[in-house]
Amino acid sequence: MKALVHHGAGHKSWDTVPDPTIEAPTDVIVKIDATTICGSDLHILKGDVPSVAEGRVLGHEGVGTVVATGSAVSTLATGDQVIIACIKNCGRCAYCRRGLHSHCAGDEGAPGMGWILGHLVHGTQAEYVRVPYAETSLHRLPEGVTPAEGVMLSDILPTGFEIGVRYGRVKPGDTVAVIGAGPVGLAVSATAGLQGAARIIAIDIDDHRAQQALSFGATHAVNSGGSGWQDEVRALTDGDGVDVAVEAVGIPHTFAMALDLVRPGGNVANVGVHGKPVELPLQDLWIKNIAISMGLVNTDTLPMLLRLVRDGRLPVDRFASHHFPLDRILDAYDTFADAAKTNALKVVLGG
Amino acid sequence: MKALVHHGAGHKSWDTVPDPTIEAPTDVIVKIDATTICGSDLHILKGDVPSVAEGRVLGHEGVGTVVATGSAVSTLATGDQVIIACIKNCGRCAYCRRGLHSHCAGDEGAPGMGWILGHLVHGTQAEYVRVPYAETSLHRLPEGVTPAEGVMLSDILPTGFEIGVRYGRVKPGDTVAVIGAGPVGLAVSATAGLQGAARIIAIDIDDHRAQQALSFGATHAVNSGGSGWQDEVRALTDGDGVDVAVEAVGIPHTFAMALDLVRPGGNVANVGVHGKPVELPLQDLWIKNIAISMGLVNTDTLPMLLRLVRDGRLPVDRFASHHFPLDRILDAYDTFADAAKTNALKVVLGG
Repeated sequence: MKALVHHGAGHKSWDTVPDPTIEAPTDVIVKIDATTICGSDLHILKGDVPSVAEGRVLGHEGVGTVVATGSAVSTLATGDQVIIACIKNCGRCAYCRRGLHSHCAGDEGAPGMGWILGHLVHGTQAEYVRVPYAETSLHRLPEGVTPAEGVMLSDILPTGFEIGVRYGRVKPGDTVAVIGAGPVGLAVSATAGLQGAARIIAIDIDDHRAQQALSFGATHAVNSGGSGWQDEVRALTDGDGVDVAVEAVGIPHTFAMALDLVRPGGNVANVGVHGKPVELPLQDLWIKNIAISMGLVNTDTLPMLLRLVRDGRLPVDRFASHHFPLDRILDAYDTFADAAKTNALKVVLGG
Repeated sequence: MKALVHHGAGHKSWDTVPDPTIEAPTDVIVKIDATTICGSDLHILKGDVPSVAEGRVLGHEGVGTVVATGSAVSTLATGDQVIIACIKNCGRCAYCRRGLHSHCAGDEGAPGMGWILGHLVHGTQAEYVRVPYAETSLHRLPEGVTPAEGVMLSDILPTGFEIGVRYGRVKPGDTVAVIGAGPVGLAVSATAGLQGAARIIAIDIDDHRAQQALSFGATHAVNSGGSGWQDEVRALTDGDGVDVAVEAVGIPHTFAMALDLVRPGGNVANVGVHGKPVELPLQDLWIKNIAISMGLVNTDTLPMLLRLVRDGRLPVDRFASHHFPLDRILDAYDTFADAAKTNALKVVLGG
């Protein structure tokens, strides 16, 4: 088969590689109908994630069709169209049994690491993929939801909701600031209303991106490129700051912005993937009665979000800015990596 | 009257000062029956809290008897014996109406700062104190609870429970590590069982203090002075760390200990008062699905804790290690400041 293979920092290619095969009784082989590229794929290709071996097929998002099932699989059959959750779910360990699949202790990949696809085992940017723990890691695609829509449920919609909205403890009437209007930030804006947010303020240094958030559910857009934007945000609150500040970028500056914007008694939800430490000014914060949350998506809310998508209640069709056939994935990478120029959000392969 | 007065870094004295008088219709004057000294009083006297003016009467904990009431006070009368909450509670601002008295927007002292007694207005280490917003900041002492017991409810018991146990989201069956076995750490150990903690591990570099925690509710004591103590703690969990790590010291080292001890999906509750920033290794933590909470006590749980004290369900009598008459407060300060030698926990004046 053909697959997008990581060959060490700066090197990737669309290679012919062996077809995946059933390795465990709980495996399923899925023929990919749609996949997409995540910011973390770019990090891997830069060499930022040393746990990804050379020769690894990348990708952790996908929708596809079951073409083979392991001997222990009874609830999935050849021909079923499924969404692949980006996180493994053995369904049996203590973590999975309480919904914390991000730390699944199942042996595949590495115990305690929920994200294995395109990381510790071969991923979804390929014609076929082996999915471990298939019955608990795959979700049937409902009629009326396209593969290009369904693939937004592999990672970004659950990440925005679980790590931004739910960990941020958004509650009815809250004012929520979302720092960063990339795909995951937009997923936060799109799902904050599910917990009753009154105001959703999208903040980005790029005016186009901030404005675009308004069509995803944000109620206000603020450009943080100039000066005075903090006052603009505070004017949308009672003056004391936002109830929830969501960091969806992953750099120290935006994390500090979130700490600055949150009101006493509020929550900071870190969604961004960070590469270095940040300074936490506890001498000022200890008295502020805030909580700071962070984490890797569990995808335990995928079924709930999928019902909303099925019923047209989430703007899932808006995330795909570009479409390519699977064999043009190298062009798709170029488009995604140059988002500042191409205005790319999610680039969909196949679908 | 006589009062303990702050005269700038390193200087305090037991002075004759004017008696307090009713200044607002919602004020009450309380004759102090029992007061005590807090670690933050020592910080003030070192000059660490520049917002405390020279000439300020210190102290934010106390039990006393009402001797005068403002014209708007109808639910308290001369002769009532009351516990003084360390936090003002105007009862009318948006913060107070949702229980976040730590950020009470009432004008007394400074809007947004709940801790004013012995900080921005004269405090309780005196023969008399003026209590603003008296009807909502005072709690009647029940029969059978002594002033020396009641004074533990002004600050340390609510702080341990609200900022350690509740913010740490302790839940039934949890293993909780409490770093620091001073009075507030002991208050965490004493109240973690209220939310069902299964194991409460008291950790201190001082063996006496760690062991002492066992009589306050801790189930295990660990001396963190040597090497291997982390393994000792982890052996008390399933190997992945504690569900809740409470920091009750207030220095970067102990904060880092809490981050190290918490399991994936767990909570770090910072109770310590910090004087400088800490490094937050977000490059490792973003994926750990933890939350870090912090804050100033609200005392909104004081009435609940008081019912438990009344019924003998909290080891409130154990906190008072030393007793002095009020006019020997300078000796009491010496005893408290030299806790390493005197084994002082709370030194009670009067009571």
